[in-house]
Amino acid sequence: MPLDAKADTVVSALRNTPEFTHGLVRDLRVRWALEEIGRPYRTELFESMTPRPAAYRQWQPFGQVPAFNDGRVRLFETGAILLHLGEEDERLLPCEPQARGDAVSWLFAALNSVEPYIMQLMWADVFKSGESWSSEASPAMREMVRRRLDQLTEALRGEEWFAGDFSVADIAMVTVLRELDYTGLFADYPKIAAYKARGEVRPAFRRALADQIADLGEPIKLGEPA
Amino acid sequence: MPLDAKADTVVSALRNTPEFTHGLVRDLRVRWALEEIGRPYRTELFESMTPRPAAYRQWQPFGQVPAFNDGRVRLFETGAILLHLGEEDERLLPCEPQARGDAVSWLFAALNSVEPYIMQLMWADVFKSGESWSSEASPAMREMVRRRLDQLTEALRGEEWFAGDFSVADIAMVTVLRELDYTGLFADYPKIAAYKARGEVRPAFRRALADQIADLGEPIKLGEPA
Repeated sequence: MPLDAKADTVVSALRNTPEFTHGLVRDLRVRWALEEIGRPYRTELFESMTPRPAAYRQWQPFGQVPAFNDGRVRLFETGAILLHLGEEDERLLPCEPQARGDAVSWLFAALNSVEPYIMQLMWADVFKSGESWSSEASPAMREMVRRRLDQLTEALRGEEWFAGDFSVADIAMVTVLRELDYTGLFADYPKIAAYKARGEVRPAFRRALADQIADLGEPIKLGEPA
Repeated sequence: MPLDAKADTVVSALRNTPEFTHGLVRDLRVRWALEEIGRPYRTELFESMTPRPAAYRQWQPFGQVPAFNDGRVRLFETGAILLHLGEEDERLLPCEPQARGDAVSWLFAALNSVEPYIMQLMWADVFKSGESWSSEASPAMREMVRRRLDQLTEALRGEEWFAGDFSVADIAMVTVLRELDYTGLFADYPKIAAYKARGEVRPAFRRALADQIADLGEPIKLGEPA
Protein backbone atom coordinates (compact mmCIF):
# COMPACT_ATOMS: atom_id res chain seq x y z
CA MET A 1 0.00 0.00 0.00
CA PRO A 2 1.78 3.19 -1.18
CA LEU A 3 0.26 5.38 1.56
CA ASP A 4 2.99 5.13 4.18
CA ALA A 5 3.61 7.63 6.98
CA LYS A 6 7.36 7.04 6.74
CA ALA A 7 7.70 7.53 2.98
CA ASP A 8 10.18 10.06 1.59
CA THR A 9 7.74 11.20 -1.08
CA VAL A 10 5.24 13.82 0.09
CA VAL A 11 2.07 14.91 -1.72
CA SER A 12 -0.03 17.81 -0.46
CA ALA A 13 -3.76 17.23 -0.26
CA LEU A 14 -6.89 18.60 1.41
CA ARG A 15 -9.10 17.88 4.38
CA ASN A 16 -12.79 18.75 4.62
CA THR A 17 -13.80 19.83 1.14
CA PRO A 18 -17.39 19.97 -0.12
CA GLU A 19 -18.73 16.50 -0.92
CA PHE A 20 -19.05 17.44 -4.56
CA THR A 21 -15.28 17.60 -4.87
CA HIS A 22 -14.60 14.18 -3.38
CA GLY A 23 -12.91 12.13 -6.09
CA LEU A 24 -12.12 15.28 -8.08
CA VAL A 25 -9.46 17.09 -6.04
CA ARG A 26 -6.33 16.90 -8.13
CA ASP A 27 -4.05 15.11 -5.71
CA LEU A 28 -6.00 12.05 -6.92
CA ARG A 29 -3.98 12.18 -10.14
CA VAL A 30 -0.67 11.93 -8.33
CA ARG A 31 -1.91 9.28 -5.87
CA TRP A 32 -3.10 7.21 -8.83
CA ALA A 33 0.26 7.40 -10.59
CA LEU A 34 2.08 6.43 -7.38
CA GLU A 35 -0.27 3.48 -6.88
CA GLU A 36 0.33 2.28 -10.44
CA ILE A 37 4.04 1.92 -9.70
CA GLY A 38 3.66 0.87 -6.06
CA ARG A 39 5.69 3.80 -4.82
CA PRO A 40 5.15 4.76 -1.15
CA TYR A 41 4.10 8.31 -0.31
CA ARG A 42 2.68 10.26 2.55
CA THR A 43 0.32 13.21 2.47
CA GLU A 44 0.57 16.66 3.98
CA LEU A 45 -3.02 17.75 4.55
CA PHE A 46 -4.41 21.29 4.57
CA GLU A 47 -7.87 22.42 5.65
CA SER A 48 -9.75 23.26 2.46
CA MET A 49 -11.56 26.32 3.75
CA THR A 50 -8.60 27.93 5.51
CA PRO A 51 -6.12 29.95 3.42
CA ARG A 52 -2.95 27.94 2.89
CA PRO A 53 -0.01 29.17 5.03
CA ALA A 54 2.30 31.64 3.29
CA ALA A 55 5.11 29.08 3.44
CA TYR A 56 3.02 26.72 1.34
CA ARG A 57 2.84 29.25 -1.46
CA GLN A 58 6.61 28.95 -1.82
CA TRP A 59 5.96 25.33 -2.73
CA GLN A 60 2.68 25.84 -4.62
CA PRO A 61 2.35 29.48 -5.76
CA PHE A 62 -1.43 29.29 -6.24
CA GLY A 63 -2.05 27.65 -2.88
CA GLN A 64 -3.61 24.64 -4.61
CA VAL A 65 -3.03 20.94 -4.21
CA PRO A 66 -1.16 18.82 -5.07
CA ALA A 67 2.44 19.83 -4.59
CA PHE A 68 5.11 17.14 -4.55
CA ASN A 69 8.49 16.55 -2.93
CA ASP A 70 10.39 13.29 -3.21
CA GLY A 71 13.46 14.50 -1.34
CA ARG A 72 15.27 15.15 -4.61
CA VAL A 73 12.92 17.51 -6.41
CA ARG A 74 10.04 19.75 -5.39
CA LEU A 75 7.29 20.23 -7.96
CA PHE A 76 3.85 21.73 -8.37
CA GLU A 77 1.16 21.29 -11.07
CA THR A 78 -0.23 17.82 -11.63
CA GLY A 79 1.14 17.76 -15.17
CA ALA A 80 4.70 18.37 -13.99
CA ILE A 81 4.39 15.76 -11.25
CA LEU A 82 2.92 13.15 -13.59
CA LEU A 83 5.67 13.82 -16.12
CA HIS A 84 8.35 13.47 -13.45
CA LEU A 85 6.93 10.16 -12.21
CA GLY A 86 6.65 8.97 -15.80
CA GLU A 87 10.27 9.78 -16.47
CA GLU A 88 11.21 7.53 -13.57
CA ASP A 89 9.02 4.57 -14.54
CA GLU A 90 8.24 3.23 -17.98
CA ARG A 91 4.91 1.84 -16.79
CA LEU A 92 3.75 5.46 -16.74
CA LEU A 93 5.59 6.88 -19.75
CA PRO A 94 7.37 4.94 -22.51
CA CYS A 95 10.99 5.72 -23.41
CA GLU A 96 10.81 5.26 -27.17
CA PRO A 97 10.82 8.82 -28.58
CA GLN A 98 7.60 8.79 -30.64
CA ALA A 99 5.66 6.81 -28.04
CA ARG A 100 6.85 9.25 -25.38
CA GLY A 101 6.00 12.20 -27.64
CA ASP A 102 2.46 10.88 -28.14
CA ALA A 103 1.94 10.42 -24.41
CA VAL A 104 3.37 13.84 -23.53
CA SER A 105 1.24 15.48 -26.24
CA TRP A 106 -1.88 13.84 -24.79
CA LEU A 107 -0.86 14.78 -21.25
CA PHE A 108 -0.75 18.44 -22.24
CA ALA A 109 -3.93 18.01 -24.32
CA ALA A 110 -5.86 16.75 -21.30
CA LEU A 111 -4.75 19.73 -19.23
CA ASN A 112 -4.69 22.58 -21.79
CA SER A 113 -7.17 21.58 -24.53
CA VAL A 114 -9.80 19.58 -22.64
CA GLU A 115 -9.86 20.50 -18.95
CA PRO A 116 -10.27 24.27 -19.43
CA TYR A 117 -13.61 23.81 -21.22
CA ILE A 118 -14.82 21.34 -18.62
CA MET A 119 -13.78 23.53 -15.70
CA GLN A 120 -15.48 26.51 -17.29
CA LEU A 121 -18.73 24.57 -17.57
CA MET A 122 -18.51 23.25 -14.03
CA TRP A 123 -17.70 26.70 -12.72
CA ALA A 124 -20.86 28.17 -14.26
CA ASP A 125 -23.10 25.17 -13.47
CA VAL A 126 -21.94 24.47 -9.94
CA PHE A 127 -19.93 27.23 -8.35
CA LYS A 128 -21.81 30.13 -9.97
CA SER A 129 -25.18 28.44 -10.27
CA GLY A 130 -26.87 31.23 -8.34
CA GLU A 131 -25.72 33.98 -10.72
CA SER A 132 -28.16 35.49 -13.19
CA TRP A 133 -25.88 34.78 -16.17
CA SER A 134 -24.81 31.23 -15.47
CA SER A 135 -27.81 29.32 -16.78
CA GLU A 136 -27.67 31.40 -19.97
CA ALA A 137 -23.94 30.85 -20.43
CA SER A 138 -24.04 27.14 -19.71
CA PRO A 139 -25.36 25.96 -23.12
CA ALA A 140 -22.56 27.72 -25.02
CA MET A 141 -20.01 26.29 -22.61
CA ARG A 142 -21.55 22.84 -22.99
CA GLU A 143 -21.29 23.08 -26.76
CA MET A 144 -17.54 23.62 -26.47
CA VAL A 145 -17.24 20.57 -24.25
CA ARG A 146 -19.28 18.52 -26.73
CA ARG A 147 -16.95 19.54 -29.54
CA ARG A 148 -14.01 18.24 -27.54
CA LEU A 149 -15.81 14.99 -26.73
CA ASP A 150 -16.50 14.50 -30.44
CA GLN A 151 -12.83 15.07 -31.22
CA LEU A 152 -11.71 12.72 -28.44
CA THR A 153 -14.06 10.02 -29.74
CA GLU A 154 -12.53 10.38 -33.20
CA ALA A 155 -8.98 10.41 -31.83
CA LEU A 156 -9.44 7.34 -29.67
CA ARG A 157 -10.58 5.19 -32.69
CA GLY A 158 -11.31 1.86 -30.97
CA GLU A 159 -8.05 2.00 -28.95
CA GLU A 160 -7.94 1.35 -25.23
CA TRP A 161 -5.80 4.36 -24.31
CA PHE A 162 -4.88 7.65 -25.98
CA ALA A 163 -1.20 6.99 -26.62
CA GLY A 164 -0.52 3.28 -27.05
CA ASP A 165 -0.19 1.64 -23.65
CA PHE A 166 -1.72 3.15 -20.52
CA SER A 167 0.30 6.22 -19.48
CA VAL A 168 0.22 9.43 -17.47
CA ALA A 169 -1.78 10.89 -20.37
CA ASP A 170 -4.64 8.60 -19.40
CA ILE A 171 -4.32 9.42 -15.71
CA ALA A 172 -4.77 13.07 -16.67
CA MET A 173 -7.52 12.51 -19.23
CA VAL A 174 -9.63 10.13 -17.12
CA THR A 175 -9.48 12.41 -14.09
CA VAL A 176 -10.30 15.45 -16.24
CA LEU A 177 -13.30 13.65 -17.77
CA ARG A 178 -14.59 12.75 -14.31
CA GLU A 179 -15.28 16.46 -13.82
CA LEU A 180 -18.17 15.94 -16.28
CA ASP A 181 -19.90 13.21 -14.29
CA TYR A 182 -22.55 15.59 -13.03
CA THR A 183 -23.59 16.64 -16.55
CA GLY A 184 -25.04 13.41 -17.91
CA LEU A 185 -23.15 14.11 -21.17
CA PHE A 186 -21.53 10.68 -21.28
CA ALA A 187 -24.83 9.14 -22.39
CA ASP A 188 -24.08 10.70 -25.79
CA TYR A 189 -20.42 9.61 -25.83
CA PRO A 190 -20.34 5.87 -25.15
CA LYS A 191 -16.77 5.39 -26.35
CA ILE A 192 -15.48 8.09 -24.04
CA ALA A 193 -17.61 6.75 -21.19
CA ALA A 194 -16.11 3.29 -21.74
CA TYR A 195 -12.60 4.78 -21.85
CA LYS A 196 -13.17 6.60 -18.56
CA ALA A 197 -14.56 3.43 -17.00
CA ARG A 198 -11.45 1.49 -18.11
CA GLY A 199 -9.41 3.91 -16.06
CA GLU A 200 -11.73 3.90 -13.08
CA VAL A 201 -11.71 0.13 -12.67
CA ARG A 202 -7.95 -0.08 -12.40
CA PRO A 203 -7.00 -1.25 -8.89
CA ALA A 204 -4.50 1.60 -8.57
CA PHE A 205 -7.22 4.16 -9.30
CA ARG A 206 -9.57 2.58 -6.78
CA ARG A 207 -6.94 2.56 -4.04
CA ALA A 208 -6.02 6.20 -4.77
CA LEU A 209 -9.67 7.24 -4.68
CA ALA A 210 -10.36 5.43 -1.40
CA ASP A 211 -7.31 7.04 0.20
CA GLN A 212 -8.25 10.50 -1.03
CA ILE A 213 -11.76 10.17 0.34
CA ALA A 214 -10.45 8.88 3.67
CA ASP A 215 -8.09 11.85 3.94
CA LEU A 216 -10.82 14.32 3.01
CA GLY A 217 -12.80 13.31 6.05
CA GLU A 218 -16.27 14.59 6.73
CA PRO A 219 -17.63 16.50 3.72
CA ILE A 220 -18.60 20.11 4.34
CA LYS A 221 -21.36 22.10 2.69
CA LEU A 222 -20.85 23.17 -0.91
CA GLY A 223 -19.00 26.42 -1.51
CA GLU A 224 -16.16 27.77 -3.59
CA PRO A 225 -13.43 25.18 -4.20
CA ALA A 226 -10.28 25.64 -2.19
CA MET B 1 17.03 33.31 -39.72
CA PRO B 2 15.30 30.09 -38.55
CA LEU B 3 12.47 30.35 -41.12
CA ASP B 4 13.93 28.24 -43.93
CA ALA B 5 11.91 26.52 -46.66
CA LYS B 6 14.37 23.62 -46.70
CA ALA B 7 14.37 22.93 -42.95
CA ASP B 8 13.58 19.44 -41.65
CA THR B 9 11.53 20.84 -38.77
CA VAL B 10 7.92 21.66 -39.68
CA VAL B 11 5.48 23.74 -37.63
CA SER B 12 1.84 24.08 -38.64
CA ALA B 13 0.40 27.59 -38.60
CA LEU B 14 -2.49 29.60 -40.00
CA ARG B 15 -3.22 31.99 -42.84
CA ASN B 16 -5.88 34.69 -42.83
CA THR B 17 -7.07 34.88 -39.24
CA PRO B 18 -8.97 37.81 -37.73
CA GLU B 19 -6.65 40.72 -37.01
CA PHE B 20 -7.38 40.39 -33.30
CA THR B 21 -5.54 37.07 -33.24
CA HIS B 22 -2.35 38.31 -34.89
CA GLY B 23 0.43 37.83 -32.39
CA LEU B 24 -1.72 35.45 -30.34
CA VAL B 25 -2.03 32.30 -32.48
CA ARG B 26 -0.13 29.65 -30.59
CA ASP B 27 2.42 28.72 -33.24
CA LEU B 28 4.10 31.92 -32.00
CA ARG B 29 5.25 30.01 -28.92
CA VAL B 30 7.04 27.38 -30.95
CA ARG B 31 8.51 29.89 -33.41
CA TRP B 32 9.86 31.88 -30.46
CA ALA B 33 11.55 28.83 -28.93
CA LEU B 34 13.10 27.91 -32.29
CA GLU B 35 14.38 31.47 -32.73
CA GLU B 36 15.94 31.44 -29.27
CA ILE B 37 18.13 28.50 -30.27
CA GLY B 38 18.59 29.47 -33.93
CA ARG B 39 17.04 26.27 -35.17
CA PRO B 40 15.70 26.37 -38.75
CA TYR B 41 12.08 25.48 -39.39
CA ARG B 42 9.48 25.80 -42.10
CA THR B 43 5.75 26.28 -41.74
CA GLU B 44 2.83 24.34 -43.15
CA LEU B 45 0.02 26.85 -43.42
CA PHE B 46 -3.71 26.21 -43.22
CA GLU B 47 -6.54 28.62 -44.03
CA SER B 48 -8.02 29.68 -40.70
CA MET B 49 -11.66 29.69 -41.75
CA THR B 50 -11.62 26.38 -43.64
CA PRO B 51 -11.92 23.14 -41.67
CA ARG B 52 -8.55 21.45 -41.42
CA PRO B 53 -8.22 18.38 -43.69
CA ALA B 54 -9.04 15.05 -42.01
CA ALA B 55 -5.41 13.97 -42.45
CA TYR B 56 -4.32 16.92 -40.30
CA ARG B 57 -6.40 15.65 -37.38
CA GLN B 58 -4.17 12.57 -37.31
CA TRP B 59 -1.36 14.98 -36.49
CA GLN B 60 -3.36 17.43 -34.35
CA PRO B 61 -6.57 15.81 -33.06
CA PHE B 62 -8.32 19.11 -32.34
CA GLY B 63 -7.44 20.61 -35.73
CA GLN B 64 -5.57 23.43 -34.00
CA VAL B 65 -2.14 24.88 -34.59
CA PRO B 66 0.70 24.35 -33.92
CA ALA B 67 1.66 20.77 -34.60
CA PHE B 68 5.33 19.88 -34.91
CA ASN B 69 7.45 17.36 -36.77
CA ASP B 70 11.24 17.40 -36.75
CA GLY B 71 11.67 14.23 -38.78
CA ARG B 72 12.25 12.23 -35.61
CA VAL B 73 9.16 12.94 -33.57
CA ARG B 74 5.67 14.27 -34.31
CA LEU B 75 4.03 16.29 -31.55
CA PHE B 76 0.99 18.44 -30.84
CA GLU B 77 0.17 20.86 -27.98
CA THR B 78 2.45 23.83 -27.47
CA GLY B 79 3.45 22.55 -24.04
CA ALA B 80 4.69 19.23 -25.43
CA ILE B 81 6.57 20.95 -28.24
CA LEU B 82 8.20 23.48 -25.91
CA LEU B 83 9.21 20.69 -23.53
CA HIS B 84 10.73 18.68 -26.39
CA LEU B 85 12.73 21.65 -27.66
CA GLY B 86 13.83 22.38 -24.11
CA GLU B 87 15.05 18.84 -23.64
CA GLU B 88 17.27 19.31 -26.67
CA ASP B 89 18.74 22.68 -25.68
CA GLU B 90 19.71 23.91 -22.25
CA ARG B 91 19.10 27.53 -23.26
CA LEU B 92 15.40 26.63 -23.10
CA LEU B 93 15.35 24.21 -20.16
CA PRO B 94 18.10 23.58 -17.60
CA CYS B 95 19.36 20.04 -16.94
CA GLU B 96 19.92 20.30 -13.17
CA PRO B 97 16.95 18.40 -11.67
CA GLN B 98 15.47 21.08 -9.38
CA ALA B 99 15.99 23.86 -11.92
CA ARG B 100 14.35 21.70 -14.56
CA GLY B 101 11.53 20.81 -12.15
CA ASP B 102 10.88 24.49 -11.47
CA ALA B 103 10.75 25.31 -15.17
CA VAL B 104 8.50 22.36 -16.01
CA SER B 105 6.18 23.23 -13.10
CA TRP B 106 5.89 26.79 -14.39
CA LEU B 107 5.38 25.58 -17.97
CA PHE B 108 2.35 23.55 -16.84
CA ALA B 109 1.23 26.40 -14.57
CA ALA B 110 1.11 28.83 -17.50
CA LEU B 111 -1.00 26.42 -19.53
CA ASN B 112 -3.23 24.80 -16.88
CA SER B 113 -3.47 27.32 -14.02
CA VAL B 114 -3.24 30.68 -15.80
CA GLU B 115 -4.31 30.39 -19.44
CA PRO B 116 -7.72 28.76 -18.79
CA TYR B 117 -8.92 31.80 -16.81
CA ILE B 118 -7.59 34.21 -19.41
CA MET B 119 -9.13 32.30 -22.32
CA GLN B 120 -12.45 32.14 -20.50
CA LEU B 121 -12.45 35.92 -20.07
CA MET B 122 -11.45 36.54 -23.68
CA TRP B 123 -14.08 34.10 -24.90
CA ALA B 124 -16.84 36.00 -23.11
CA ASP B 125 -15.48 39.49 -23.86
CA VAL B 126 -14.52 38.99 -27.48
CA PHE B 127 -15.95 35.90 -29.10
CA LYS B 128 -19.29 35.93 -27.25
CA SER B 129 -19.56 39.70 -26.79
CA GLY B 130 -22.96 39.77 -28.49
CA GLU B 131 -24.55 37.28 -26.08
CA SER B 132 -26.93 38.48 -23.41
CA TRP B 133 -24.96 36.78 -20.61
CA SER B 134 -21.41 37.73 -21.53
CA SER B 135 -21.25 41.23 -20.08
CA GLU B 136 -22.74 39.91 -16.83
CA ALA B 137 -20.32 36.99 -16.66
CA SER B 138 -17.25 39.03 -17.51
CA PRO B 139 -16.69 40.65 -14.06
CA ALA B 140 -16.63 37.27 -12.28
CA MET B 141 -14.25 35.93 -14.90
CA ARG B 142 -12.07 39.02 -14.54
CA GLU B 143 -11.88 38.52 -10.79
CA MET B 144 -10.44 35.05 -11.32
CA VAL B 145 -7.82 36.46 -13.67
CA ARG B 146 -6.95 39.17 -11.13
CA ARG B 147 -6.45 36.55 -8.45
CA ARG B 148 -3.96 34.77 -10.68
CA LEU B 149 -2.16 38.05 -11.49
CA ASP B 150 -1.85 38.75 -7.76
CA GLN B 151 -0.39 35.29 -7.21
CA LEU B 152 1.99 35.65 -10.15
CA THR B 153 3.18 38.99 -8.78
CA GLU B 154 3.90 37.37 -5.43
CA ALA B 155 5.61 34.37 -7.03
CA LEU B 156 7.84 36.45 -9.27
CA ARG B 157 9.28 38.38 -6.25
CA GLY B 158 11.67 40.81 -8.05
CA GLU B 159 13.09 38.04 -10.28
CA GLU B 160 13.43 38.43 -14.01
CA TRP B 161 11.92 35.08 -14.96
CA PHE B 162 9.70 32.53 -13.24
CA ALA B 163 12.21 29.70 -12.87
CA GLY B 164 15.74 31.02 -12.62
CA ASP B 165 17.10 31.72 -16.09
CA PHE B 166 14.84 32.36 -19.05
CA SER B 167 13.18 29.09 -20.11
CA VAL B 168 10.25 27.57 -21.99
CA ALA B 169 8.16 28.41 -18.93
CA ASP B 170 8.57 32.09 -19.78
CA ILE B 171 7.79 31.52 -23.45
CA ALA B 172 4.51 29.96 -22.33
CA MET B 173 3.75 32.52 -19.62
CA VAL B 174 4.55 35.63 -21.66
CA THR B 175 2.47 34.45 -24.61
CA VAL B 176 -0.40 33.50 -22.30
CA LEU B 177 -0.31 36.93 -20.64
CA ARG B 178 -0.42 38.64 -24.05
CA GLU B 179 -3.99 37.32 -24.35
CA LEU B 180 -4.87 39.96 -21.72
CA ASP B 181 -3.55 42.92 -23.68
CA TYR B 182 -7.05 44.00 -24.68
CA THR B 183 -8.24 44.22 -21.06
CA GLY B 184 -6.16 47.08 -19.72
CA LEU B 185 -5.55 44.97 -16.58
CA PHE B 186 -1.78 45.35 -16.71
CA ALA B 187 -2.09 48.93 -15.45
CA ASP B 188 -2.81 47.35 -12.04
CA TYR B 189 0.00 44.77 -12.28
CA PRO B 190 3.19 46.68 -13.10
CA LYS B 191 5.52 43.83 -12.15
CA ILE B 192 3.73 41.42 -14.44
CA ALA B 193 3.59 44.04 -17.20
CA ALA B 194 7.36 44.52 -16.87
CA TYR B 195 7.89 40.76 -16.95
CA LYS B 196 5.83 40.43 -20.12
CA ALA B 197 7.73 43.32 -21.70
CA ARG B 198 11.06 41.63 -20.88
CA GLY B 199 9.91 38.71 -22.97
CA GLU B 200 8.52 40.80 -25.77
CA VAL B 201 11.74 42.77 -26.32
CA ARG B 202 13.83 39.65 -26.86
CA PRO B 203 15.09 39.58 -30.45
CA ALA B 204 13.92 35.98 -30.84
CA PHE B 205 10.38 36.96 -29.84
CA ARG B 206 10.37 39.87 -32.26
CA ARG B 207 11.53 37.73 -35.16
CA ALA B 208 8.96 35.05 -34.35
CA LEU B 209 6.18 37.63 -34.16
CA ALA B 210 7.17 39.28 -37.46
CA ASP B 211 7.25 35.91 -39.20
CA GLN B 212 3.89 34.87 -37.78
CA ILE B 213 2.28 38.09 -38.92
CA ALA B 214 3.82 37.76 -42.38
CA ASP B 215 2.47 34.21 -42.69
CA LEU B 216 -0.98 35.22 -41.48
CA GLY B 217 -1.33 37.57 -44.42
CA GLU B 218 -4.28 39.89 -44.84
CA PRO B 219 -6.42 39.94 -41.68
CA ILE B 220 -10.04 38.97 -42.10
CA LYS B 221 -13.06 40.22 -40.20
CA LEU B 222 -13.46 39.09 -36.60
CA GLY B 223 -15.24 35.78 -35.99
CA GLU B 224 -14.76 32.59 -34.07
CA PRO B 225 -11.13 31.56 -33.76
CA ALA B 226 -10.06 28.65 -35.92
